[in-house]
Amino acid sequence: MPQQKSEHIPRATIQRLAVYVQVLENLQREGTEVISSEPLAKACNVNASQIRKDLAYFGEFGVRGVGYYVKNLIASITSALGVDREWRTVLVGVGNLGKALLNHKEFRLRGFNIVGAFDCDPFKIGEEVSGLEVVCTKRLREMIGDNGAEIGIITTPPERAQRAANHLVEAGINGILNFAPSRITVPDHVNVEYVDFFHHLYALSFNITHPNTK
Amino acid sequence: MPQQKSEHIPRATIQRLAVYVQVLENLQREGTEVISSEPLAKACNVNASQIRKDLAYFGEFGVRGVGYYVKNLIASITSALGVDREWRTVLVGVGNLGKALLNHKEFRLRGFNIVGAFDCDPFKIGEEVSGLEVVCTKRLREMIGDNGAEIGIITTPPERAQRAANHLVEAGINGILNFAPSRITVPDHVNVEYVDFFHHLYALSFNITHPNTK
Repeated sequence: MPQQKSEHIPRATIQRLAVYVQVLENLQREGTEVISSEPLAKACNVNASQIRKDLAYFGEFGVRGVGYYVKNLIASITSALGVDREWRTVLVGVGNLGKALLNHKEFRLRGFNIVGAFDCDPFKIGEEVSGLEVVCTKRLREMIGDNGAEIGIITTPPERAQRAANHLVEAGINGILNFAPSRITVPDHVNVEYVDFFHHLYALSFNITHPNTK
Repeated sequence: MPQQKSEHIPRATIQRLAVYVQVLENLQREGTEVISSEPLAKACNVNASQIRKDLAYFGEFGVRGVGYYVKNLIASITSALGVDREWRTVLVGVGNLGKALLNHKEFRLRGFNIVGAFDCDPFKIGEEVSGLEVVCTKRLREMIGDNGAEIGIITTPPERAQRAANHLVEAGINGILNFAPSRITVPDHVNVEYVDFFHHLYALSFNITHPNTK
């Protein structure tokens, strides 16, 4: 991994890096081995200097007159993001969405290995989903002590998200991906990311309703 | 709906409005009827002047010395966002995630009514999911002519997302919510929103790996 040059990486850079990885993975699937910065920038919907600036936080990439080696650049970015390793993950809330995520092959493919499934519904406890036995949420702390998970995924209904977050924080988790459509409060050392479908649907409906404001 | 004052509403404002709605819905669930701008701002993780500025695009809200009426403010924001009406929606890709979304009650609750489910897998065509018969993706255009859908949701594997997008665009859809972890190319008049789990997981893993850069 190239030495990280700067302490403070803007959040927008991290978001764009995730987009660059997706675009590079598309290119890799299509068999592209090398790409110059202009077409890469166009595919990522940014300008070439933005890509160079974002990558510069992590070191020197690209070969003058050649461009970027797709496979190497994916490896460098995922290494910089810390996603070139396994992240053991637990999921709280085994409803439709929780089950879908437990069965979603992409999580494991990208190193996010879901090693525990929790729910407080007595009818769900003991059920097996995608090879995992659903365990009572009260046992989170004890189970995480065993399985060493670092990231928690919340897929409960909105009114149970805060309780799930409390259990995760008490169990020592310091990163939460919240799919429940409600905000949660956690201590400062805990990172929360919201996957909010409706935020995106609201943006779509606004843009369709007001096409001239795009 | 208050008259919209400005032509150009920044994207960041739209994103914050979606957060305000979530926080206000939390407050409503807890029985709060009125809230002043400071605690509302704190719960939304912004400052009070930001909220006032964002709301000012849409009119005058809040009562001096009283604060905001929670129920009215939710109604005003959802009206401004264009989400106080039904949005007929179709879904392409009836795998685990697609099925979870078809069964997700929140979509209909928030006015996003999924009226069609499409897949190109002959083993899935004809299957019934959440009251909808899965139809061959090639019939999208014909079906959308009948059901008047305006928004398309893509839940295919990454390598099939572009084809799904092409079918949706040909069928006249002008808003796409893409859950597939790959970028898609569409004509300028079509709005695309990406729901990218991994982008959020990458941000988490980066922040956990580099806690001092937060």
